Amino acid sequence: AQSSATLFGVVDAAMSRYSVRSQSWDGGPARAVRQSRWEMSPSGNFASRFGIRATEDLGDGLSAGFWLEAPVTNDTGANPLSFGRRSTLSLSGALGELRLGRDHTPSFLNDWAFDPFTSNGVGVNLIAVVSSNLAISRALETRKTGPLSQRLLGGGLSAGTDNYLRSSNSVGYFLPTGLGGVYGQAMFAFPEDPQSQRGRYAGARLGWAGGPADLALGYGESTLGNSGASDEKIRSLNFGASYNFGPAKLLGEWSLVRNARRDGTTLAPIDDRYRGLLVGATVPVGAGLWRAAYSRVRFTSGQGAGDASADKLALGYVHHLSRRTALYATVARIGIVNGRNNTAVMAVTPLVVSNPSILPQPYYQVTDGMQARSATGVDVGLRTVF
Amino acid sequence: AQSSATLFGVVDAAMSRYSVRSQSWDGGPARAVRQSRWEMSPSGNFASRFGIRATEDLGDGLSAGFWLEAPVTNDTGANPLSFGRRSTLSLSGALGELRLGRDHTPSFLNDWAFDPFTSNGVGVNLIAVVSSNLAISRALETRKTGPLSQRLLGGGLSAGTDNYLRSSNSVGYFLPTGLGGVYGQAMFAFPEDPQSQRGRYAGARLGWAGGPADLALGYGESTLGNSGASDEKIRSLNFGASYNFGPAKLLGEWSLVRNARRDGTTLAPIDDRYRGLLVGATVPVGAGLWRAAYSRVRFTSGQGAGDASADKLALGYVHHLSRRTALYATVARIGIVNGRNNTAVMAVTPLVVSNPSILPQPYYQVTDGMQARSATGVDVGLRTVF
Amino acid sequence: AQSSATLFGVVDAAMSRYSVRSQSWDGGPARAVRQSRWEMSPSGNFASRFGIRATEDLGDGLSAGFWLEAPVTNDTGANPLSFGRRSTLSLSGALGELRLGRDHTPSFLNDWAFDPFTSNGVGVNLIAVVSSNLAISRALETRKTGPLSQRLLGGGLSAGTDNYLRSSNSVGYFLPTGLGGVYGQAMFAFPEDPQSQRGRYAGARLGWAGGPADLALGYGESTLGNSGASDEKIRSLNFGASYNFGPAKLLGEWSLVRNARRDGTTLAPIDDRYRGLLVGATVPVGAGLWRAAYSRVRFTSGQGAGDASADKLALGYVHHLSRRTALYATVARIGIVNGRNNTAVMAVTPLVVSNPSILPQPYYQVTDGMQARSATGVDVGLRTVF
Repeated sequence: AQSSATLFGVVDAAMSRYSVRSQSWDGGPARAVRQSRWEMSPSGNFASRFGIRATEDLGDGLSAGFWLEAPVTNDTGANPLSFGRRSTLSLSGALGELRLGRDHTPSFLNDWAFDPFTSNGVGVNLIAVVSSNLAISRALETRKTGPLSQRLLGGGLSAGTDNYLRSSNSVGYFLPTGLGGVYGQAMFAFPEDPQSQRGRYAGARLGWAGGPADLALGYGESTLGNSGASDEKIRSLNFGASYNFGPAKLLGEWSLVRNARRDGTTLAPIDDRYRGLLVGATVPVGAGLWRAAYSRVRFTSGQGAGDASADKLALGYVHHLSRRTALYATVARIGIVNGRNNTAVMAVTPLVVSNPSILPQPYYQVTDGMQARSATGVDVGLRTVF
Repeated sequence: AQSSATLFGVVDAAMSRYSVRSQSWDGGPARAVRQSRWEMSPSGNFASRFGIRATEDLGDGLSAGFWLEAPVTNDTGANPLSFGRRSTLSLSGALGELRLGRDHTPSFLNDWAFDPFTSNGVGVNLIAVVSSNLAISRALETRKTGPLSQRLLGGGLSAGTDNYLRSSNSVGYFLPTGLGGVYGQAMFAFPEDPQSQRGRYAGARLGWAGGPADLALGYGESTLGNSGASDEKIRSLNFGASYNFGPAKLLGEWSLVRNARRDGTTLAPIDDRYRGLLVGATVPVGAGLWRAAYSRVRFTSGQGAGDASADKLALGYVHHLSRRTALYATVARIGIVNGRNNTAVMAVTPLVVSNPSILPQPYYQVTDGMQARSATGVDVGLRTVF
Repeated sequence: AQSSATLFGVVDAAMSRYSVRSQSWDGGPARAVRQSRWEMSPSGNFASRFGIRATEDLGDGLSAGFWLEAPVTNDTGANPLSFGRRSTLSLSGALGELRLGRDHTPSFLNDWAFDPFTSNGVGVNLIAVVSSNLAISRALETRKTGPLSQRLLGGGLSAGTDNYLRSSNSVGYFLPTGLGGVYGQAMFAFPEDPQSQRGRYAGARLGWAGGPADLALGYGESTLGNSGASDEKIRSLNFGASYNFGPAKLLGEWSLVRNARRDGTTLAPIDDRYRGLLVGATVPVGAGLWRAAYSRVRFTSGQGAGDASADKLALGYVHHLSRRTALYATVARIGIVNGRNNTAVMAVTPLVVSNPSILPQPYYQVTDGMQARSATGVDVGLRTVF
């Protein structure tokens, strides 16, 4: 029977091949090893999900709406469903939209909007991968005991990348349309624990879109702890722009992610920096879309412990079988320099953002005295939207 | 595409402030502390949920129906979805309805139906809070080992308040309509373990509604154990009544909850009693509804270990933006006397029923020699039904 | 509002009585004990579930479709929802269907299709019960540490019977229709771990249906480990046939299940065998359907440790109240000989397949020196499809 709400979602499945080449760096005899595997992977083009949403016209230009969206791991069907992708309630009017609940952070949106691969599959923007690694590793590092779910910021099943991709307990405000192309939003997310402020997020995004051009500035600050023993924040600043020339659309993004913390013993301030850059393009050809991107991230250690860098080249094609369904293929290659200097974030940089759950990625494990130097990934898949 | 079933639900989000004042009682120098926090809370007006239900006409006055309903924690989206609010299958006819599965207990329904705040948000009937505390604390006390989910009666994710709010494995019977305003139901819930009878529930409710009047009597018995070492039951008796004068509707409820158990060592019978009272009113004003309630609970220790009592005053307003959507605000104040004599049930009496999950409530933690004396809560929120 | 997808499902609830008689076998004085219980059980006729699915016509005879289906434990509502029954994405055309994700194995389908009780309730085909026991017990035996969910092959909530009932990470191919009644499919499921190949599945099914006749051959191979320490496979071969005489339909199945492994210390090959047989019938009578089956399983120990056997007689009736809703009753009796020789698979053979979760079945626990000799089960229930 008819409901006032709509059921919607995505199912996306790919066959993927991942291959990593590691080399020795320890000064001993040169060694190298290649680890490869095939696997079935969801979400190579769009993230698999299902959701329920509705908007109600309240009159006088006012409307109310809600959006509940759960990730779907359709390779195994195994993960318990929860509305961890988004669960929001909104009141909208001439002054804009007030949105309450769990939602994407404003500081993530440029990493997604100006990435030709929109943060999915092996082509994903490198700063998104690095930022996810950073969010997960610092959350686990700053709370070392307890079940995994409590050590992550959001405390839930899909909370691994919290305060990078999404924040829980958030109050968001969105500018109304009709401001001459200016768009923007701000978000504050309450910490789960008011004492330590762990889990707090504050951020904003401001952009302008007109004709073929689109540009936006984003900033966000995630608090991992605000007490003597764990005073730590991750701050993200990024700027993205795109221009649609017609036969091709060019995209670019610059990012600076800072992990500012105090050492537990000396309380000396440490300021690790990750500088990201992406240039990309999309080219529509008939029923298809070509996508290409070069992205890189340079890590500067705030402790002088040694720097690291990674770069990535990705090429893909999406063939639309209908408005809802497409076949796609993507190939990507990562190169890593001195990843051993920051193993949690730069040494095991996966080809895909481990979204929505923190998956073991054995194909990136590095044996003693070795470090990953390059990785190649391929997705060949099918995607449908409902 | 069209289904024979209907998708339905509620999304409700509020900004809440909780504040607790604790005082010393240990005879030392007088001390007092106030702990406050803001947080985002779902379900301040109606409980957030989503569900699927259908009724099928089988002819000859017979019909079949099912109802699957899951709680939704839309502040974080974190909790795994399960149909823990209700999952029933029914066969209905001229003789009434037979209902199988997980459902509200008959003995809870008066606590809900005669509460102007219908058991949601900071205004909730005090006996509902005390009964929830009692159900959770005795379930955990009578099974001290194993994972949390197995120590609770229903054994599931939303099982904390089982046999108070809801029972699993239940067979319910509902009187048919057309009995001159008489309504009623009975429920028996099978224990998960037939040896110890732990989890067994039996209860009934009988009422009459005619014109502006409505009154109902409820009784229920929950078994926590029936062996030598853990012979324990919780028995609830309540009577509620309401009368709609037109400009205002008055509501009232009287309740007696008994926790009868035998001491593990001496097997001396202990009979703790909780006596609840509520008087309240709702007043419709244009598109709004004012709600007010005074409720109290007196605890009498069956061991002579010292009594305790709590009372609560709540005032709220719901402003209907449409038939489905409303803004609301509620303020409530609890006072507690000698809560230290029954810390699990009376000393940390939360402002809201922790439904559906057992949430940590650090703003009620009491330091040594201190006890909570008063608490104030405010909800300001938005709710939509779909 | 209208979606392109359809919500569908089943809600099925029964009152069940299970009774087990155990006898002593240890040569001491003869002892016997009967353990009985009533409980509420879902899925006595059809498996309770809810799902979302859609098919999209892409033109040129091509179509895309998806199917997400979650088990529902409607007796308690407790289990977290996950699309563990099926989560597939398909592309279909003149050459057949390519299906990706989690799905039934081809080797299970004969156990289901030629069972008058279609693998649900107390009447279930005995080889299905034995195969489920075997899949669960060998998965747990070959990975002894870690949380339960990681010790099972699929690693998910409903993974207990993985690679018997279903496989995750699978690529399936289905023959197109219009091959003169010939039907068939093949499936390969990627292991979660490419080193040990644990979780790998490969299988196929080929059949022919014409007029009143239907027959099919199935084969499947599940890998539990492929390293020195845990080289183990379960291989299933089965053949089923049915013939519809009009007033009655006869069904039969023959099966051979082999558990081939190497002993951890001596690496001597062990080849346990389970031989299954079923003969059954369904007889439509007005709005009802009578169902009857005799099934048996003979176990031959590959270590000469002693054999065992079980047989089962089941009789049931389904009364259709409408096309979607039915009342049903089933009674079944199992006899077991020398079950102590293979306690994990043959000694505690439950009356129902523990689907979708691994449930404790205390009514099968056997005290020292005793073994279960016979069991009787009754389901009386209601089922509706939506």
